[in-house]
Amino acid sequence: MIKHISHIGIAVKNLDEAIAIYEKLGLQLEGIEEVPSQMVKVAFFPCGETRLELLMPTSPESPIAKFIENRGEGIQHIALAVDNVTEELNKAHENGFRLIDTQPRPGAHNSEIAFLHPKSTLGVLIELCQEKED
Amino acid sequence: MIKHISHIGIAVKNLDEAIAIYEKLGLQLEGIEEVPSQMVKVAFFPCGETRLELLMPTSPESPIAKFIENRGEGIQHIALAVDNVTEELNKAHENGFRLIDTQPRPGAHNSEIAFLHPKSTLGVLIELCQEKED
Repeated sequence: MIKHISHIGIAVKNLDEAIAIYEKLGLQLEGIEEVPSQMVKVAFFPCGETRLELLMPTSPESPIAKFIENRGEGIQHIALAVDNVTEELNKAHENGFRLIDTQPRPGAHNSEIAFLHPKSTLGVLIELCQEKED
Repeated sequence: MIKHISHIGIAVKNLDEAIAIYEKLGLQLEGIEEVPSQMVKVAFFPCGETRLELLMPTSPESPIAKFIENRGEGIQHIALAVDNVTEELNKAHENGFRLIDTQPRPGAHNSEIAFLHPKSTLGVLIELCQEKED
């Protein structure tokens, strides 16, 4: 089941500069985390039940570095909070969605995540995200 | 004050096709509305306190038609729900953000909206949106 929007991923070149802009906008920085599997450093801004995640690549091999190279800075993906990521991923596969991840893998905040391929979702990179129970 | 993510605007070429994809993903269509001021037809999918809005241009002059021409289908903007759009717009102006709208104007669902220019928000088109009180 899809519960809400977990987060919106925004690709940025310079994390400090980006943090200053989102603070000026009136949002409050919650924390910064490095996610080695994605080769990114992430700044979190809670906004209701969703977080804005500013994603800065830590390597030219990072998917975020490639995104910025191809499209410039901007919104890179949306993550749907689901109760069970394995179940939703299987359902997506059965429904003919093309998958980037055939198995869930670790995301930020101890979540389990999996991406659908934007080719099958009209250009929108969608992440399924099972958030950690508090 | 920013309250939550009001909606995420997604540019699509064919609304029926896009609706079918988001329904297959497990979301439920709430309704369809035409917004003449933006030259779009919009399909709404509630997702927690946020809505996904699929935006199909109804004219080649629509900002959404231009977006698709330049960048292809995909996420076009995010809207922050604010308690007072005039106040937030003035604050944004004072804080040096470049504005697309210097005055709020009518949006979907009887909201009042104003856009900030993506040049001053690192490529992210941000809408301030004062939702109608129910």
